[in-house]
Amino acid sequence: MTIQGQQFIGETAVKGANGEIFGFDAASGEKLQPSFGGATKDDLERACALADAAFDTYRETSLEERALFLEAIADNIMALGDELVERCCAESGLPRARVEGERGRTVGQLKLFAGVVRDGGFLELRLDPALPDRKPLPRPDLRLRKIPLGPVAVFGASNFPLAFSVAGGDTASALAAGCPVIGKAHSAHPGTAELVGRAVQKAVKDRGLPEGTFSLLFDSGREIGQGLVADRRVRAVGFTGSRGGGTALMRIAAGREQPIPVYAEMSSINPVFLFPSAVKNRGEAIGKAFAASLTLGAGQFCTNPGLVIAVESEGLDSFVKGAAEALSGMPAAVMLTRGILDAYRKGVDAVAGHAAVAEVAAGQDGGASRGQAKLFAVKAEDFLAARELQDEIFGAASLVVRCRDEAEVAKVIESLEGQLTVSLHIDEADHAAAKAILPKLERVAGRLLVNNFGTGVEVAHAMVHGGPFPSTSDGRSTSVGSLAIDRFLRPVCYQDMPAALQPEALRDGNPLKLFRRVDGVMGQN
Amino acid sequence: MTIQGQQFIGETAVKGANGEIFGFDAASGEKLQPSFGGATKDDLERACALADAAFDTYRETSLEERALFLEAIADNIMALGDELVERCCAESGLPRARVEGERGRTVGQLKLFAGVVRDGGFLELRLDPALPDRKPLPRPDLRLRKIPLGPVAVFGASNFPLAFSVAGGDTASALAAGCPVIGKAHSAHPGTAELVGRAVQKAVKDRGLPEGTFSLLFDSGREIGQGLVADRRVRAVGFTGSRGGGTALMRIAAGREQPIPVYAEMSSINPVFLFPSAVKNRGEAIGKAFAASLTLGAGQFCTNPGLVIAVESEGLDSFVKGAAEALSGMPAAVMLTRGILDAYRKGVDAVAGHAAVAEVAAGQDGGASRGQAKLFAVKAEDFLAARELQDEIFGAASLVVRCRDEAEVAKVIESLEGQLTVSLHIDEADHAAAKAILPKLERVAGRLLVNNFGTGVEVAHAMVHGGPFPSTSDGRSTSVGSLAIDRFLRPVCYQDMPAALQPEALRDGNPLKLFRRVDGVMGQN
Repeated sequence: MTIQGQQFIGETAVKGANGEIFGFDAASGEKLQPSFGGATKDDLERACALADAAFDTYRETSLEERALFLEAIADNIMALGDELVERCCAESGLPRARVEGERGRTVGQLKLFAGVVRDGGFLELRLDPALPDRKPLPRPDLRLRKIPLGPVAVFGASNFPLAFSVAGGDTASALAAGCPVIGKAHSAHPGTAELVGRAVQKAVKDRGLPEGTFSLLFDSGREIGQGLVADRRVRAVGFTGSRGGGTALMRIAAGREQPIPVYAEMSSINPVFLFPSAVKNRGEAIGKAFAASLTLGAGQFCTNPGLVIAVESEGLDSFVKGAAEALSGMPAAVMLTRGILDAYRKGVDAVAGHAAVAEVAAGQDGGASRGQAKLFAVKAEDFLAARELQDEIFGAASLVVRCRDEAEVAKVIESLEGQLTVSLHIDEADHAAAKAILPKLERVAGRLLVNNFGTGVEVAHAMVHGGPFPSTSDGRSTSVGSLAIDRFLRPVCYQDMPAALQPEALRDGNPLKLFRRVDGVMGQN
Repeated sequence: MTIQGQQFIGETAVKGANGEIFGFDAASGEKLQPSFGGATKDDLERACALADAAFDTYRETSLEERALFLEAIADNIMALGDELVERCCAESGLPRARVEGERGRTVGQLKLFAGVVRDGGFLELRLDPALPDRKPLPRPDLRLRKIPLGPVAVFGASNFPLAFSVAGGDTASALAAGCPVIGKAHSAHPGTAELVGRAVQKAVKDRGLPEGTFSLLFDSGREIGQGLVADRRVRAVGFTGSRGGGTALMRIAAGREQPIPVYAEMSSINPVFLFPSAVKNRGEAIGKAFAASLTLGAGQFCTNPGLVIAVESEGLDSFVKGAAEALSGMPAAVMLTRGILDAYRKGVDAVAGHAAVAEVAAGQDGGASRGQAKLFAVKAEDFLAARELQDEIFGAASLVVRCRDEAEVAKVIESLEGQLTVSLHIDEADHAAAKAILPKLERVAGRLLVNNFGTGVEVAHAMVHGGPFPSTSDGRSTSVGSLAIDRFLRPVCYQDMPAALQPEALRDGNPLKLFRRVDGVMGQN
């Protein structure tokens, strides 16, 4: 199976005729073969029509069938072997161990959702049996399940070419929910996208599912992506990328004749709070661990620690010292794309040029083609006066905010935009102080973690990777972990529906042996 | 406790100073005393500040405390006695039995949500215990719960002065979720609003809750309502009303620095599908039942059957005959407000004046101050060519769409906007045909009901009162029934949080004995 420059429209594989797209070797900048073509409006139309046609069949596949499909995708991705790993390394500049790890995560996500589908809890089954003798009025028979929203547009992410792209978390959760998926490949890794797309397409065919269950389009500009979000047959959007890109899609979705939900994961600087006792006892060690988190994957994580908040103290100085020492040994890193590198440098230059900001540490300089880690510091009062210092710099740059006292820490918290994560570094002596600000931090973020950093997002049932705007467009949900399936569902009630017309999961006797609420009581009845 | 013309800002009761508002006797048009005053911008600011200040305390009340609060509101509403019923009858023009029934429903909703709070299922508790020895990386300890979004703005509805107004479904579900509520009283029933607002305020005080848990503002224009939705401290909106009003609030919410969810229940014509065998066997009886549903509450229900779809047949003629006979005996009805009556007449005139539409039945004419029921008919091909025939006419008007065949029925379904309900009238001989179109109907509506009409919305666990746009702004949710609590929640993950800082519901040993998912497995562990 070699890369042929093809996109996938249902069961067909075809090169797009709308402009030429190339992958590039992220390290060398060299153009990679073959060329890819952007989708035409006809391709978009056909993918949407097929997805719409597939929806009613795909969504009524049995839970077991759907789980087997997700597992087949996982198997097919592994079967791509080294070609996938090598192409992905080249297109992303990420090291082999990371790409192999990310492949493991991608496959793990698909298998997690296979389990979620079999469990059936996501269906939120509820039965309120008829009460024909109730006075003054009888109660009808009411049965509720959640059904999928419809075809979902999934935009591949630059920073997770496997785990949040063609068969990544958004695709896995949408397919698990029963939604056909139309992927929009990220132009930075077209070869990776094609390989994974073919793996999904093969699973659709092998499992005998309707061809429109999955399509993958390339886009030589923005027309196809925007057209997907605007198409009346598309009923939800999954996106991971920039704030500008995400809010543009939100506007398109809100302006449709029928607005649809957009789940955009966009921008987070993931504040790290250092508490007095913790930094006093182990400031330097926290600083070293921070430097490792900051530079992981060239800082190209949504959960990268871009802000450090602490009260002035010797402990804080130790933290900065530890971070500076560790960073000084960190090599500059290849970034995902030339565009991302340029944006990183521009962001760093803007902060460095700020009158109130001082550079306090840096990684090694790697020349024009590498991203150099940077740590800056600023007084809280200056930070509070300069809203732009909260703008995400995608890459290994962070800012220490030095506060005079706890009251100033509280002001900084008040000023924060929505975040994916907040980290607290605390010792037992800090517990009371931590407890006092936890309610404020809960308002800000989707995940609160202690004595660690947000990088390294566990794919699990209790994970939340989501938070108030602008970290995501919709803080009521998560994009990582099994709860992500909820994003693509809506409830439907069946009233006095004859048994022959009821969905199987809702029939008397609980034939599928799922958890259901009967008269409000949860159980396996 | 008499009506004093006051609004409630936390624990204070004060007459608004921004313009004069009067209630009117809906039947006579007579002005009711006393006068009320619209809230000033200062009132709005203070209500928002109090709600924000109350949030962190109120949301961490124990489940039992919160349940008792909801029950106290219910008791206080009943304690208002006849003054509430009489004022509500006068302001709404609704008959006493309906108002008493609606009061029962309002109290029932509050008690239902008390049960939902005690059950704790809405917290969606999940634990993935640490795996310190896992290779290649240990798994951290992850715990998830849902927390409330923050202060919620609730807009009272004209057509449910009790059940969807000051202490109605939106307020009950938001308070149950842990959100402070700022109500915006509907100007059509200010006296009813004040009485109920005082009942809520008393419960806040008696239960020792922070005063900002509840406020109620009057609005002499649109400035206060719009200001509420725009305020940065308000985090969600509940609204029941017109499509124009709802979409205006959606735009304000989407344009905020931090966009927030709007749950607007707006516009639905609730299609009724008559199947061949059913109308053949009992067309006339269905027609009579239809007329009763159409004219219930002067047709002023969101679930009023505004569209009837069937293939031409003698059975359909019997249906029209039955409906016409029943309607001919129906007296014209007082409508909620003069504005609603005017809008109803305008809507009826527009349909009546449509070249392709014929009037086939009417209720009794009640003169200029009453709404007369109307039934129209149109050929499917003409209906499909005239999008405006799908506009909701709020009141007792409906339109029969006569289709040539099943293919034309399918075309009509394709053309439908999102709906709250769809009704199917079927006999066993119709099951196969019904089964064939059910998937299409599921895409359109939130509730599918058989051999009945959508009016009469049961408040239950398995109810869905919500559907795709424009029936609601967010079809992923319901505004009636216990699942409504989900609208006001978001998930938060706690990673490696020391036991002393964990929320009680998530601690080891399950101290609250709630359902939780541990490693993905549902149980009471």
